Amino acid sequence: MPVTRMSQLFVRTLRADPADAELPSHRWLVRAGYIRRVAPGVYSWLPLGLRVLAKVEAIIRQEMDAIGGQEVRFPALLPREPYEASGRWTEYGPNLFRLRDRRGNDYLLGPTHEEMFTLLVKDLYSSHKDLPLSLYQIQTKYRDEARPRAGILRGREFIMKDSYSFDLDDDGLQASYERHRAAYIRIFDRLGFDYVIVQAMSGAMGGSASEEFLALSEFGEDTFVRSPGGYAANVEAVRSPAAAPVDAAAVPAPEIIDTPGAGTIDTLVEAVNAVRPRLGRPWTAADTLKNIVVVLTHPDGRREPLVIGLPGDREVDLKRLQAAVAPAEAQPFTEEDFAQWQGLVKGYIGPVRLTAAGPQAVLGERGEAGLRYLTDPRVSPGTSWVSGANAPGQHIVNLTAGRDFQSDGSLDVAEVKDGDPAPDGSGPLELARGVEMGHIFQLGRKYAEALGLKVLDQDGKLRTVTMGSYGIGVSRAVAMVAEATCDARGLAWPRAVAPFDVVIVVAGKAPEQMAAAEQIAADLADQGVDVVLDDRAVSPGVKFKDAEVIGFPTAVIVGRSLADGVVEIRDRTTGDKQMAPLAEAAARVAAVVRVG
Amino acid sequence: MPVTRMSQLFVRTLRADPADAELPSHRWLVRAGYIRRVAPGVYSWLPLGLRVLAKVEAIIRQEMDAIGGQEVRFPALLPREPYEASGRWTEYGPNLFRLRDRRGNDYLLGPTHEEMFTLLVKDLYSSHKDLPLSLYQIQTKYRDEARPRAGILRGREFIMKDSYSFDLDDDGLQASYERHRAAYIRIFDRLGFDYVIVQAMSGAMGGSASEEFLALSEFGEDTFVRSPGGYAANVEAVRSPAAAPVDAAAVPAPEIIDTPGAGTIDTLVEAVNAVRPRLGRPWTAADTLKNIVVVLTHPDGRREPLVIGLPGDREVDLKRLQAAVAPAEAQPFTEEDFAQWQGLVKGYIGPVRLTAAGPQAVLGERGEAGLRYLTDPRVSPGTSWVSGANAPGQHIVNLTAGRDFQSDGSLDVAEVKDGDPAPDGSGPLELARGVEMGHIFQLGRKYAEALGLKVLDQDGKLRTVTMGSYGIGVSRAVAMVAEATCDARGLAWPRAVAPFDVVIVVAGKAPEQMAAAEQIAADLADQGVDVVLDDRAVSPGVKFKDAEVIGFPTAVIVGRSLADGVVEIRDRTTGDKQMAPLAEAAARVAAVVRVG
Repeated sequence: MPVTRMSQLFVRTLRADPADAELPSHRWLVRAGYIRRVAPGVYSWLPLGLRVLAKVEAIIRQEMDAIGGQEVRFPALLPREPYEASGRWTEYGPNLFRLRDRRGNDYLLGPTHEEMFTLLVKDLYSSHKDLPLSLYQIQTKYRDEARPRAGILRGREFIMKDSYSFDLDDDGLQASYERHRAAYIRIFDRLGFDYVIVQAMSGAMGGSASEEFLALSEFGEDTFVRSPGGYAANVEAVRSPAAAPVDAAAVPAPEIIDTPGAGTIDTLVEAVNAVRPRLGRPWTAADTLKNIVVVLTHPDGRREPLVIGLPGDREVDLKRLQAAVAPAEAQPFTEEDFAQWQGLVKGYIGPVRLTAAGPQAVLGERGEAGLRYLTDPRVSPGTSWVSGANAPGQHIVNLTAGRDFQSDGSLDVAEVKDGDPAPDGSGPLELARGVEMGHIFQLGRKYAEALGLKVLDQDGKLRTVTMGSYGIGVSRAVAMVAEATCDARGLAWPRAVAPFDVVIVVAGKAPEQMAAAEQIAADLADQGVDVVLDDRAVSPGVKFKDAEVIGFPTAVIVGRSLADGVVEIRDRTTGDKQMAPLAEAAARVAAVVRVG
Repeated sequence: MPVTRMSQLFVRTLRADPADAELPSHRWLVRAGYIRRVAPGVYSWLPLGLRVLAKVEAIIRQEMDAIGGQEVRFPALLPREPYEASGRWTEYGPNLFRLRDRRGNDYLLGPTHEEMFTLLVKDLYSSHKDLPLSLYQIQTKYRDEARPRAGILRGREFIMKDSYSFDLDDDGLQASYERHRAAYIRIFDRLGFDYVIVQAMSGAMGGSASEEFLALSEFGEDTFVRSPGGYAANVEAVRSPAAAPVDAAAVPAPEIIDTPGAGTIDTLVEAVNAVRPRLGRPWTAADTLKNIVVVLTHPDGRREPLVIGLPGDREVDLKRLQAAVAPAEAQPFTEEDFAQWQGLVKGYIGPVRLTAAGPQAVLGERGEAGLRYLTDPRVSPGTSWVSGANAPGQHIVNLTAGRDFQSDGSLDVAEVKDGDPAPDGSGPLELARGVEMGHIFQLGRKYAEALGLKVLDQDGKLRTVTMGSYGIGVSRAVAMVAEATCDARGLAWPRAVAPFDVVIVVAGKAPEQMAAAEQIAADLADQGVDVVLDDRAVSPGVKFKDAEVIGFPTAVIVGRSLADGVVEIRDRTTGDKQMAPLAEAAARVAAVVRVG
């Protein structure tokens, strides 16, 4: 293994932060010369970055091979037809890069390859004897993200490991899923992440069981919950327990009250306590039924208004809403929408309007407004609420679910709060943030059915194959390892993925210093250690600073102390320093590298 | 290293040729389960193919690293602006995949990365001390080929190694170029190609000196010439020697002759010999001046007719023409074009129309037709020709270049023929065919100037950097190694790139055969040999056939002879068979693998 010379290495450390740097890892990866921006969410890998990427890829490859995964590689340029068959050509909406070739045929840049893997296996395999099968690729993917973020953390061109399992039955799928889950645990352990495995929604993927591997990070875009008893889920996946039905026999009839100017929950609570004070305890926001209107835009462009009823002490969580309505997209109801749907009186929306004859449905199943009305699981039959009367300045009290109004179903999109009970009874939930590093899905038969992947079973009958799909963000993993380990002075790589194990810093101009440094470097290289010799004609200060910014795990400083026959060995992460006799330096460093 | 089991390996050998198979390598790579077609010119790599690809990449990487190349990786998705600055956004024409992102910004899928490398070095480097520098990448590239061909031989998504050198001056560039040339020789030698290095045109790349590495192949799309004295050039790059000027003092005045029905060279030769027979020797096609009209379509869409005059015994070579007029594209003159340019009488086109007052220019510098007229280097001043009179049924004899007509310049696009003299006087040329495997260019300052890449020189002055660009078709190399080595029974990989070194074929159902095979496989794997155990429950015939189709260099057959304590060792390429005692089998095979 040759010694790399810093004077030759294509790297420049930069003093200024990139203008768009949001996260420390982004700042340092650019400043230390690992990546360079080419376009929004599109980056080049410089030599240092590519070395880290290669080490991360090698770890993933080893663990995938170890569970019997076989590596293949699909193109990024894909024809439209398979994605048309699965519905994703449309469902992906603006996130898909679409293009036409010179003959006018439609292509896309693959965001993920379920369709292609399904077709490949269909193409070559036909018998239950061929299963189980696990295929994977490490490949460049494309998503036209609305908000590419933090360098390579969320790019529009990025590298993913995606694998797919193929089984004859559900038990087989479960076993394949567990094998992948175990491999992912080994991979993220080796990468040195602090991570948590949470239940997840499967989003545009379809399918049923799925879990995410989230790296803990205050900057994470994913919010998750966990309980003392071990429950953990992405907030999108949290299922709020449905409230038990309540006997409403004793609840008085609904009654319209005048609440002028009470168009918000706060003013409503004040008004109802003033107009209809309650014995025992005052009305609170939790007694009100808030009705939020949104417009769903379906993949085919159709717009549909939707009213969501939920307790007034909760907000709609937009990410939970988006996940619940996908592939449709939810947008706020606009003034124009209100003008079009005259039945809705802004600030006073409610499920019914009371008339002399009693409650009369405005929203919901029998609603005259013709709007779909979905309610939070806490709005169980028999529960009573204060809600809008769909008339300016009026609300209704004692409005009782099931008796006075009906909904078209349940929609669990209210925000999850710290202290909410875990759905499995394992205690109060705590909210935290993370970055999605991996995602494992039991896809089931969705793609196999759409694309006709069947095999002959033991009885000679055709059976649809059941699939799993498993992803790891490879370029994102580079960013997150950097994020988890960097400090105020720069990057500080764990040895498993460091671009080089050791830098030898020549701290003076004396020829014997350079000679000693060359000797240590050559000794280490002979032992298979990735070593850089900082032989540049710059000041020791610049070399020390660059070594810290670049984040070599170990630095050997050959300086003035060489006159006493010793050199200094520094650990980038712990900051430990020790002096070592020149003759022992290489051996000591090699021992550290091997242990780390 | 684990033993791969054929029963688990994701491969199916197919009996039928792919419908579009043009070359043996294409047929076998698909039938043996190395690649699968996804779209025209777009292929997936199956496990066997990916293993070969990885070995080819490793060889290239080693040799690039050995000349000090540093690996980086650029995105494939690139913004329009740098390619606009270099002119290539337009010049690439329909060969470029273009697309827009969700914000309406223009992007392309990179066909080659000169612009991006230039900008990267400009971004990070600023001094002559930083040079020389060589960067390379092994990366997926895109070209929307009009005629994708022969599987991965010429795809629309393909893998290239492209490197770029950066030097302060021409001597530096020459040295970088020589280093790359030497590395390429080592790479193609290791891959085992029969190749030739030829002078080349640089095409859309710009720049001056350039050479191609062509793999010899009767199916090759590149035609090249070579002489006994060592001259070798792509036909596009051959420069025909300009004929010496001739004294035309004794040539009679031009004269119109009637040649009704003589609209072709053959009929013209017949007619002129009948109408104006010549003393001594009859007129031949070589005495006629043929005028071919084409339309150039420039990158900006402008159409321009062009008339090419050349000796009647030669055709225009379309590839030489395309190379000469690039980035414009030449198309045949259509009937509509003839209707538009009335001065041209089809079958009777010539540079002048004779009038009572003497020759009158129709084509060329002073031409009334307003058409550009370029002539073959053999049409030197003073040479006399029989050519069209631009009047139906009439030609002109004794029409003398320089005296009776002028051209707008020289255009060397006539076909090169076997036996033509080499331009350097090294003997008669021989024509042959090959496939371009590598291309090395001295780009010079074209991109550095267009994009402003300058460094401070020793005197503190800004100097424009000079660049080289060097490419190898990596996926194409896989196809060409297959092409060069396959036979009527399938693939026959050289050991350097074989997906596995050895297959152990269990040829019977006796448990001791499987046990012996397992033992040999395990022994070989322990010694680092890539080994496949064919443990499938299929007939020995199927296993033998698959082993040959897939092309494992060595097969060990554990069959009936095991009863006598011996197994058979077969060499796929030579067909050699030898028997070996079971106890020695692994050692013998390992020795062969290491030597090969």
